[in-house]
Amino acid sequence: MTANWHEVVNAAEIESPALLVFPDRIQENIRRMIAIAGGAERLRPHMKTHKMPEVLRMQIEQGISRFKCATIAEAEMTAATGAEDVLLAYQPVGPNVDRFLELVARFPSVRFSCATDNPASVGDLSDAAARSSARLEVLVDLDVGQHRTGIPPDAHAAKLYRLITALPALRPGGLHAYDGHIHDPDVAARTINCEAAFAPVEVLRRKLEWEGLTVPRVVAGGTPTFPMHARRGNVECSPGTCIFWDAGYGKKLPDLDFLPAALVLARVVSKPTPDRLCLDLGHKAVASEMPHPRVVFLNLSDVNAVAHNEEHLVVETSNADAFKVGDCLYGIPWHICPTVALHSEAVVVENGKATQRWRIVARERKLTI
Amino acid sequence: MTANWHEVVNAAEIESPALLVFPDRIQENIRRMIAIAGGAERLRPHMKTHKMPEVLRMQIEQGISRFKCATIAEAEMTAATGAEDVLLAYQPVGPNVDRFLELVARFPSVRFSCATDNPASVGDLSDAAARSSARLEVLVDLDVGQHRTGIPPDAHAAKLYRLITALPALRPGGLHAYDGHIHDPDVAARTINCEAAFAPVEVLRRKLEWEGLTVPRVVAGGTPTFPMHARRGNVECSPGTCIFWDAGYGKKLPDLDFLPAALVLARVVSKPTPDRLCLDLGHKAVASEMPHPRVVFLNLSDVNAVAHNEEHLVVETSNADAFKVGDCLYGIPWHICPTVALHSEAVVVENGKATQRWRIVARERKLTI
Repeated sequence: MTANWHEVVNAAEIESPALLVFPDRIQENIRRMIAIAGGAERLRPHMKTHKMPEVLRMQIEQGISRFKCATIAEAEMTAATGAEDVLLAYQPVGPNVDRFLELVARFPSVRFSCATDNPASVGDLSDAAARSSARLEVLVDLDVGQHRTGIPPDAHAAKLYRLITALPALRPGGLHAYDGHIHDPDVAARTINCEAAFAPVEVLRRKLEWEGLTVPRVVAGGTPTFPMHARRGNVECSPGTCIFWDAGYGKKLPDLDFLPAALVLARVVSKPTPDRLCLDLGHKAVASEMPHPRVVFLNLSDVNAVAHNEEHLVVETSNADAFKVGDCLYGIPWHICPTVALHSEAVVVENGKATQRWRIVARERKLTI
Repeated sequence: MTANWHEVVNAAEIESPALLVFPDRIQENIRRMIAIAGGAERLRPHMKTHKMPEVLRMQIEQGISRFKCATIAEAEMTAATGAEDVLLAYQPVGPNVDRFLELVARFPSVRFSCATDNPASVGDLSDAAARSSARLEVLVDLDVGQHRTGIPPDAHAAKLYRLITALPALRPGGLHAYDGHIHDPDVAARTINCEAAFAPVEVLRRKLEWEGLTVPRVVAGGTPTFPMHARRGNVECSPGTCIFWDAGYGKKLPDLDFLPAALVLARVVSKPTPDRLCLDLGHKAVASEMPHPRVVFLNLSDVNAVAHNEEHLVVETSNADAFKVGDCLYGIPWHICPTVALHSEAVVVENGKATQRWRIVARERKLTI
């Protein structure tokens, strides 16, 4: 893995903008995930980052059997590709309740579960499961400080858990505690914040077990708190981004040692002024929900983004002279997960050569169900 | 078109998040575009906003025959759907040069053209056209102040135009002048800025014609300067966004009277605190390249976005009590064009009812070519 690992000898065959993926680096990131977790069985990685069957198969081949998804399309792809255990870490509402039960019925050998955070939704899930003669496994989604979804890990959560246990069409699946608000660059601060947020979850788990209830699993954290939760031993870790890594987490989480394994390939389409390059990397091709830099280039330094439109990224740089119209730039997206979802396929780069294309199957919101 | 035009009686059948389109409003927006332009033949609307054959057909049925595209996929969709004249308002580089020529060869009855802004690209286009025995029509892309692409409308531009004219495999297609930097809310200011930016383009056109060169067309402006260019009489106007309209232009361009014709449908998926609603409208489902509000809700006021993740939009609102988990929200995206590209299909709402789905065909970067 040299300094020029990103260069593709047959780049001239790749239409830009393109998403590139590097399987050797993905394999290495999976190995590192397993090493941090202390074993493949400790992992429940998130599908939302890659959304590709081929990457999922690499994870399965390295011994990972449990996965986490945010959409029913991701869950369908995950089940169809051969996963044993699929958690929809999302509360199905509206027509997604029946869609989820259709998915469960379609793959009887897969262990499915989903999240919930209020009694009305529990009732909806129970009614739908009863209608389809399923017994649906449901986790209580806990709000450990992000205030995005979930219920605080307190007596109300225990009551909700008891409700799930009491309904014949449901089975208690355990607890889900996502702490996406914790991403301190300082490891000590992140560790302290993670421990403080998680402590009541552990109390809740013990309380439920003391009552004689089954708590099959606690699914905790994303990528930033992955090493903290990995040390617990009795939780499932569900990092997502580290499968590909990106410039945002590379900058914010210096303690984590993953390899950039997915890039965007862009070309210079215009040089409107002497210090400007206009690239074919608009916000329809690279994630844009954050301020610039939205991409960090491996072969261009001293870059200042001055405009970002649907198909154009205009940068000012003192190095504009080194590039002519048509030249390629390789960039690490600041946020890889939504970047992947902007592309219908990824160009696979092996030993410096583009060899094949992988469909980003679950970028669709609906596959067959 | 009542105050509750957005409500869908069978919303329970629509999985969220979803993109909704309203054909009666689209038809009306096309009529208003034609009225402003003073005739369908004065229009070259942009495909990048809707990317859908069904919407393109509505435009063709109202008499529009010329279209503008940003990607080869959009251009292929446009040609395949029956457009007579397709401008790729983008400079093809790298493998896109040959892709464009393949497209030209595939649809011999369609009048294709593309943009260019430098002699090397002109040479590449000429070589590729010669190889494929085509005669390719090429417009000079002018930088009228945005400094995104193009060449200033000066003597160098005239020289580039002469180069195109001189090459046997190319034909001069005229001038392309996109002034996306001009979007003053004040109409007088926008008019003045538009006139000032365009004046040298008119001088360049006259100079080229005085030399005896053919200038088949000048394609000018986008949506903000559409009414200004419409008054000229001798340019083609290429507005994009006004086919669907959006909250951003609705706010920034109060002089333009288009109807919101595309919405996002979201549901409440959680109520983590008494004043918060968590919606299934993450930045994978609504454009996010700008600050909040990224969506303006028609049935929820007093909204403050506090978090936007891949599948979640968390808002604080004094009206949270009025909504329960599973309830629908209807929102006008701040920027509709990249929002459309985040969805694989649009749910068509006719007379208040969801009736069918239209594939957003050209959200792919590659169709068959």
